[in-house]
Amino acid sequence: MFFASDNGSGAAPEIMAAVLRANDGYARSYGADPIMDRVRQQIRQTFEAPDAAVYLVATGTAANALAISLCAQPWTAVFCHEDAHAALDECGAPEFYSGAKLALVPGDHGKMTPGTLTQALGRIGESGVHGVQRGLLTITNVTEAGTTYTPAEISTLTALAKAKGLPCHLDGARFANALVATGATAAEMTWKAGIDIVSFGGTKNGCLGVEAVVIFDPAKAWEFELRRKRGGHLFSKHRFLSAQMEAYLTDDLWLRLATHANVMGARIATGLSSRPGVRLLHPVDANILFTEWRSGTHDRAEAKGAIYYRLPAPEGREAARLVTSWSTSDQDVDNLLSALRA
Amino acid sequence: MFFASDNGSGAAPEIMAAVLRANDGYARSYGADPIMDRVRQQIRQTFEAPDAAVYLVATGTAANALAISLCAQPWTAVFCHEDAHAALDECGAPEFYSGAKLALVPGDHGKMTPGTLTQALGRIGESGVHGVQRGLLTITNVTEAGTTYTPAEISTLTALAKAKGLPCHLDGARFANALVATGATAAEMTWKAGIDIVSFGGTKNGCLGVEAVVIFDPAKAWEFELRRKRGGHLFSKHRFLSAQMEAYLTDDLWLRLATHANVMGARIATGLSSRPGVRLLHPVDANILFTEWRSGTHDRAEAKGAIYYRLPAPEGREAARLVTSWSTSDQDVDNLLSALRA
Amino acid sequence: MFFASDNGSGAAPEIMAAVLRANDGYARSYGADPIMDRVRQQIRQTFEAPDAAVYLVATGTAANALAISLCAQPWTAVFCHEDAHAALDECGAPEFYSGAKLALVPGDHGKMTPGTLTQALGRIGESGVHGVQRGLLTITNVTEAGTTYTPAEISTLTALAKAKGLPCHLDGARFANALVATGATAAEMTWKAGIDIVSFGGTKNGCLGVEAVVIFDPAKAWEFELRRKRGGHLFSKHRFLSAQMEAYLTDDLWLRLATHANVMGARIATGLSSRPGVRLLHPVDANILFTEWRSGTHDRAEAKGAIYYRLPAPEGREAARLVTSWSTSDQDVDNLLSALRA
Amino acid sequence: MFFASDNGSGAAPEIMAAVLRANDGYARSYGADPIMDRVRQQIRQTFEAPDAAVYLVATGTAANALAISLCAQPWTAVFCHEDAHAALDECGAPEFYSGAKLALVPGDHGKMTPGTLTQALGRIGESGVHGVQRGLLTITNVTEAGTTYTPAEISTLTALAKAKGLPCHLDGARFANALVATGATAAEMTWKAGIDIVSFGGTKNGCLGVEAVVIFDPAKAWEFELRRKRGGHLFSKHRFLSAQMEAYLTDDLWLRLATHANVMGARIATGLSSRPGVRLLHPVDANILFTEWRSGTHDRAEAKGAIYYRLPAPEGREAARLVTSWSTSDQDVDNLLSALRA
Repeated sequence: MFFASDNGSGAAPEIMAAVLRANDGYARSYGADPIMDRVRQQIRQTFEAPDAAVYLVATGTAANALAISLCAQPWTAVFCHEDAHAALDECGAPEFYSGAKLALVPGDHGKMTPGTLTQALGRIGESGVHGVQRGLLTITNVTEAGTTYTPAEISTLTALAKAKGLPCHLDGARFANALVATGATAAEMTWKAGIDIVSFGGTKNGCLGVEAVVIFDPAKAWEFELRRKRGGHLFSKHRFLSAQMEAYLTDDLWLRLATHANVMGARIATGLSSRPGVRLLHPVDANILFTEWRSGTHDRAEAKGAIYYRLPAPEGREAARLVTSWSTSDQDVDNLLSALRA
Repeated sequence: MFFASDNGSGAAPEIMAAVLRANDGYARSYGADPIMDRVRQQIRQTFEAPDAAVYLVATGTAANALAISLCAQPWTAVFCHEDAHAALDECGAPEFYSGAKLALVPGDHGKMTPGTLTQALGRIGESGVHGVQRGLLTITNVTEAGTTYTPAEISTLTALAKAKGLPCHLDGARFANALVATGATAAEMTWKAGIDIVSFGGTKNGCLGVEAVVIFDPAKAWEFELRRKRGGHLFSKHRFLSAQMEAYLTDDLWLRLATHANVMGARIATGLSSRPGVRLLHPVDANILFTEWRSGTHDRAEAKGAIYYRLPAPEGREAARLVTSWSTSDQDVDNLLSALRA
Repeated sequence: MFFASDNGSGAAPEIMAAVLRANDGYARSYGADPIMDRVRQQIRQTFEAPDAAVYLVATGTAANALAISLCAQPWTAVFCHEDAHAALDECGAPEFYSGAKLALVPGDHGKMTPGTLTQALGRIGESGVHGVQRGLLTITNVTEAGTTYTPAEISTLTALAKAKGLPCHLDGARFANALVATGATAAEMTWKAGIDIVSFGGTKNGCLGVEAVVIFDPAKAWEFELRRKRGGHLFSKHRFLSAQMEAYLTDDLWLRLATHANVMGARIATGLSSRPGVRLLHPVDANILFTEWRSGTHDRAEAKGAIYYRLPAPEGREAARLVTSWSTSDQDVDNLLSALRA
Repeated sequence: MFFASDNGSGAAPEIMAAVLRANDGYARSYGADPIMDRVRQQIRQTFEAPDAAVYLVATGTAANALAISLCAQPWTAVFCHEDAHAALDECGAPEFYSGAKLALVPGDHGKMTPGTLTQALGRIGESGVHGVQRGLLTITNVTEAGTTYTPAEISTLTALAKAKGLPCHLDGARFANALVATGATAAEMTWKAGIDIVSFGGTKNGCLGVEAVVIFDPAKAWEFELRRKRGGHLFSKHRFLSAQMEAYLTDDLWLRLATHANVMGARIATGLSSRPGVRLLHPVDANILFTEWRSGTHDRAEAKGAIYYRLPAPEGREAARLVTSWSTSDQDVDNLLSALRA
């Protein structure tokens, strides 16, 4: 009954098997392994982007910080939701890598709206040399609140940014879950919707630790390589990153794993939503739930073995974040729903 | 016949088995996994340093850059050999993380000498606020030239640095090979010789990708954690780093693997040193050889399948770097020696 | 009728005379001039802080950015009002120098309140290694809205910060105006109220370009010197900075100039406040006024030679920022009031 | 008898008079003063560069660090002489502003040679993503050793750099002295010789504190403005910088002042060179002399009031740096020569 985070899960068997296979013999290091050649092609096909530059790193923070630094100059603002991972959970890595500052955009349920983004874009970059300039829009999908943007919503936001000349980044730490939730293709969710660069996550969805950065305009590919190396994120035994990503993309494994995680999330949502005194705080679009219930539930559920994050709540109430993953079983969900029963 | 680098090898079977075992079930993320608790104790015992702070990252460049940044202020110079990995092979990562500048110290066979270090220490930090201050000494063992420092040699260098108030870092990307070569213990090679912080390598010696940073004075442990996170080097599924390191240190696997690599290096050295026209450019202390031979050898050897780095050489001569690893077989060495025969 | 900014004024005659005097003969450079010895003593006496470290730079942005960088680590948040100069008008200089991020605190009339600061302090620094840590509180007095904090108000804010272990900085670009407005002494407004480091402005109040940084605990004095040099802010012909500051502090010139500016501000406020259709947007504590009036006023006033900043306003209304200085004359004020008449 | 540095002199009367004149009335701030419009035109004419972007800062370190940061990416090396001001006397400011590292090029008498530069250019930038890339060439004229490069020598060096794709910067802290010494025009010494950006010094040659940065290709002008502001180097009362530079360039004042300084330098050189036991360590091209003489001279000369820098020297010998300036009088030189007599 582990619902604390999808990064508490291990690696899917297919991924682990691929890592084992990749261990045979010698391989050229630093990304020159033959598996990486195949991965590059897989990702280009997945994104319908034959010219995209593709690089692998091992952590989501590295992917985001490097992607942001590639697009945002040190004297600019990076527009992101005020609850974005880049803003709250990366200990300033985007600022460290880019030198830029983050401009926090509010919005319910973890989502910027055209209105809040327009306001933020209007507040910054209008005072000449005295204030920072506008630099980049970064959107997280699935959001920190467990909600998703549709491609249409993303297009609307990127159009506002592009009207000001800004490139657009997608933090897709849970990109597979977002695609499954919305039914969009990878291309529809990204470059067709105005996204220029993507952090394409694997770690949370069944890998050991691998994220791709997909850059649709390859003009800055070499700069990215230098930034990755300079950040200490170029793996010598790179084949072990490549192997994960190859297996992840083979036979739609990534979508199957995410589908499973989302289905488990929906089962919990369904199971809880009709219960008296229980409230879902955000729409449950993918594999993350925010719930509120009566005081006393935490102790009962944890006594029965449920593991999740407690959140602050109003007097007499309790709140929680529950996350499912590729490895969440039906039995886990049943046990959780039972443990949460009054 | 792969002798291009020890990072062209895969992972040792014991390491890979540990990664597989670590994949069972759920685990707390970001370094709170129980394996890490055991690794911390293993490393403290290995280094006879019960209070040491121990952290894992996945690349050697990350280990070095983070360790250096912990010790050297932005307005200081980091003294290192002019051929050090930190100077030549990390694309400026130490400068990026620390803000400091590198002061390059010459010396034959990849080694600083008391004389060259004294000169460098005298040239910098003597002009008040106008020049940078002295910040840190970093020593690489095994050196880039394949030679080693004895603990006594390290003590002499660190004493010079400490007389100027400098902390001392050891880049031990091939730490195991250095211990095997010199017969020193981990403690003798580090804190007993004046080293304050160590990059303790695993990747090149049979791991997939893991390096420990060992900080003997734990006062700055929390700062290190923040720097690691901010650099994007904190793994969410950290157990996969921990598992590698645990297996690496269990039953002296790390020393056995390095012993093998060094023995293979010595066999090549022995095999080549008596041949007419062949010259070893540096003493062969560990698993890296620099050789010079007659023109024409490269083509012959490569035609027979030998893989290694060609280096510039004088007219009529050719030069090469050959690296052995935990996975180099006797047969590989025999084949290489045969392929290099005129 | 120049009311665009106090930095549109020149230098007061006493200041300019001192610069002229300082030009005689040779002087040791880089802050070793004898005038600086006297300035150090003057400032220590002014602040009743015999041990304070005192340094001069030429711009307010340099003073703030250097002061902030001395106190806030790169992985921390600097709490400031959302309209602070450091946040909006320094093009990211505080972030560039410190590496830290700014945490924006709201509050009416340009002032943080105990409530808004408490909220901000509670939002940041509570997520372990994942989020940035709390780093520094910086308060601006006179505020960007032309209001002032009393020493008691500052004490309340710094007490909240110090309860979390934070040092406190005062951006005193208009420090003299704040003292005059509140009747406080320099000591009461700073270290007696919990301030650790001050940007003590001269430029806006009658100097050519000089700001002092006053550090009450001199332990980090040498680090400040290195940071100043490294930022390119150490003047070779430093005597020209020293001379300005010496004259500024002699015979209370700085307080007399600020008193005059504040009196001129008050005269405008009095003149406007009773007029129908005119509204002062913030309390006028010092030499900056924010006003709103009926549409059409701008064109009329500017046609008569009034120079000031136009601000956005609701339909049918116009808004303006008016700033007085040491050189604003009674006649200027009379002319302005007349020009603004319907 | 002050020969310690040209920055120990005050400002020339014409400069100071201009500062006084500029103090009249109100002026737009932050570089929008009308004097700056005239300065821009003066500098464009002086350099025969009608499109050049021109900016003023107050210190030479700021000019150099900003110019270098405009041209060199963080992952590159800036090639400079090993004794360059940027390398030894700016406390890491170029690295702080640019993120780049300095690659030190040797050469007698403070000058890179085609040979030493070629070697340095060949050592760096050839190891793919592992090492830093080549970023910028920066040449100092007058050099730290008091020698000068002719335009032809500069052309040779910049051609080597440009063959590798590098932009070229000239640190002209003593640009006027270099022109006078070589008879070159400003254009011949800069863009006609392959220089892309110049630090054009005023401070050491009779100003209070002003340096221009001249950018021949204005494409990056706006980026420079942002970098200047972000570094805290944009003056609010900018007219006081403009006024210095306007007077400096009017009626060839800058060349007259430098001519005087160089003539004084030559007089000392002539006076000393024939004396037994006295040796000039470098050719005396401008206003800086390095001399060696018999032990005992220092004490004698200083007792008679001579002020200069003592330098290390061989046993039985003493060495000194002597610097003349616009304000050095014939009498000063006579007194010095007399004081140095055995």
